[in-house]
Amino acid sequence: MKTQIGVIGSKDISSGNVLDLALKVGREIARTGAILVCGGLTGVMEASAKGAKEAGGTTIGIIPGNVKSEANSFIEIVIATGIGYARNTIVATTSDAVIVIAGGSGTLSEAAFALNMGKPVIALKGSGGIADLIANREIDGKLVLSASSPVEAVRLGVEKASLLT
Amino acid sequence: MKTQIGVIGSKDISSGNVLDLALKVGREIARTGAILVCGGLTGVMEASAKGAKEAGGTTIGIIPGNVKSEANSFIEIVIATGIGYARNTIVATTSDAVIVIAGGSGTLSEAAFALNMGKPVIALKGSGGIADLIANREIDGKLVLSASSPVEAVRLGVEKASLLT
Amino acid sequence: MKTQIGVIGSKDISSGNVLDLALKVGREIARTGAILVCGGLTGVMEASAKGAKEAGGTTIGIIPGNVKSEANSFIEIVIATGIGYARNTIVATTSDAVIVIAGGSGTLSEAAFALNMGKPVIALKGSGGIADLIANREIDGKLVLSASSPVEAVRLGVEKASLLT
Amino acid sequence: MKTQIGVIGSKDISSGNVLDLALKVGREIARTGAILVCGGLTGVMEASAKGAKEAGGTTIGIIPGNVKSEANSFIEIVIATGIGYARNTIVATTSDAVIVIAGGSGTLSEAAFALNMGKPVIALKGSGGIADLIANREIDGKLVLSASSPVEAVRLGVEKASLLT
Repeated sequence: MKTQIGVIGSKDISSGNVLDLALKVGREIARTGAILVCGGLTGVMEASAKGAKEAGGTTIGIIPGNVKSEANSFIEIVIATGIGYARNTIVATTSDAVIVIAGGSGTLSEAAFALNMGKPVIALKGSGGIADLIANREIDGKLVLSASSPVEAVRLGVEKASLLT
Repeated sequence: MKTQIGVIGSKDISSGNVLDLALKVGREIARTGAILVCGGLTGVMEASAKGAKEAGGTTIGIIPGNVKSEANSFIEIVIATGIGYARNTIVATTSDAVIVIAGGSGTLSEAAFALNMGKPVIALKGSGGIADLIANREIDGKLVLSASSPVEAVRLGVEKASLLT
Repeated sequence: MKTQIGVIGSKDISSGNVLDLALKVGREIARTGAILVCGGLTGVMEASAKGAKEAGGTTIGIIPGNVKSEANSFIEIVIATGIGYARNTIVATTSDAVIVIAGGSGTLSEAAFALNMGKPVIALKGSGGIADLIANREIDGKLVLSASSPVEAVRLGVEKASLLT
Repeated sequence: MKTQIGVIGSKDISSGNVLDLALKVGREIARTGAILVCGGLTGVMEASAKGAKEAGGTTIGIIPGNVKSEANSFIEIVIATGIGYARNTIVATTSDAVIVIAGGSGTLSEAAFALNMGKPVIALKGSGGIADLIANREIDGKLVLSASSPVEAVRLGVEKASLLT
């Protein structure tokens, strides 16, 4: 079983910089041989899946709806949950570690769930939104790690995930 | 249909002060004629349900397990979800407004979901934990309201909930 | 904590006879002092909730969507799950016994879940659909009970539920 | 995106014949180039995943718990839902068609959900349990197809799935 790294962030994102960071995170996940897990929709999810696919990786999209075509075109394996945004909890439980890029309240719910499950959470510092809000913050006795680049974020994610298994 | 006010906070809480605040919030919810919604377990959930019952109110406990006896003894109506901590999302969607008392990462996930659903979130300032972390903070363009007493928290919750319906 | 009796059946039902049976089942649940649990939508769910309310009972509607107004007007307590038809599992786990009236594939999924959870399942014989298909049938070593009237169905439900707790 | 074929059946199965049928179904799914989806546990799920892996296929296990190690050793991609048996609904929504092998009440809930979602359901006739109960039966206006061999079951599943997309 390969390491499964989650990438969480908004579906509504217009910043080219954030999308570029997501693409690089996805690419790096694939390069390390891990599988990318995300919510399967647009924005950060799509950009990271694109990066992973371009680097020959495997991508899993855990979507809210029950129709596979809702997933973006870089998702190889679609999990059509049909449970709406409660699927955020499954993104967290299915990932061995989670990387946060920008993001809003939905992203915060996923990060909080991941912390609650004892999963390593790495915030990509400088990407804005929730990532910058929680980077280096201790929540409920658990430290949200901070990474200053996509490569560092993935390295931390893979390293911390390996300590859990 | 009556207004349904959610109370979220940790099941593991030893502070008498926090439990007392929760009791008073529950009591006030009942006094206003609203129904109390919570996660049905111990700590803040139990204390607030106790307060509501003592004041003659109705209490709903949305529990993670599938056995009704998991609920605390002040819960009148048990929703045994069987979906684990994904039930946090249902606490948020079932409440017309949510009051945050202290709390950890699980509480944060519920507050984030409530914000994501556009529900009013009121943090009881001074109760510690997540409540103090998010009070008066804007997350994803949505302001977490701050209340300085149980009475003010419930008043804000009922008032903001009424604007939604 | 009161006994919670689930009523399951289609939202799309045009037969006056089936709706009348559902109304009578709801009324009888209220008369015995139990709480009615259902999926909160139209058809069998609405008719049974109407019967329970007219007899002074309490009604819980566990709806698929995340907006309370989706519930029919006889629902007193709305659980807005937001998890779509996966909410069928919660109707089953929240009920101490389940009464099946007519019904299609969604109803079958609820009945199967209830059996899987070891809950008593009572089919109202003669109401058609799934109820007639599974009445008196042994599924997976568990017998689906058969009732020939609303009064008998509720009596069996309450009686068998009491043996579990 | 590849076709995703679900295999549903009991985790508790001792019949060598049933396990052999499951193995052959899994193998055939891989041979056709489709991805196998299952509940990730033992019995029919494990045997079918073993067959698919031996034939070089991809296997997805959608497990009830939130710990990846709960999955059997032939699962390549683990979706740790943490939502208990409500995960049955996700097995149904994630599959483009579902093949039923033997099975009990849990299997029946999955088959009923699949029918409810309009997915083709193929029962492997002669495997016993739920498969034999529902083969060739019309439920709610939807016909459960019957297959007399693993090869026929997979052929029907892939063929009917292709008509949906």
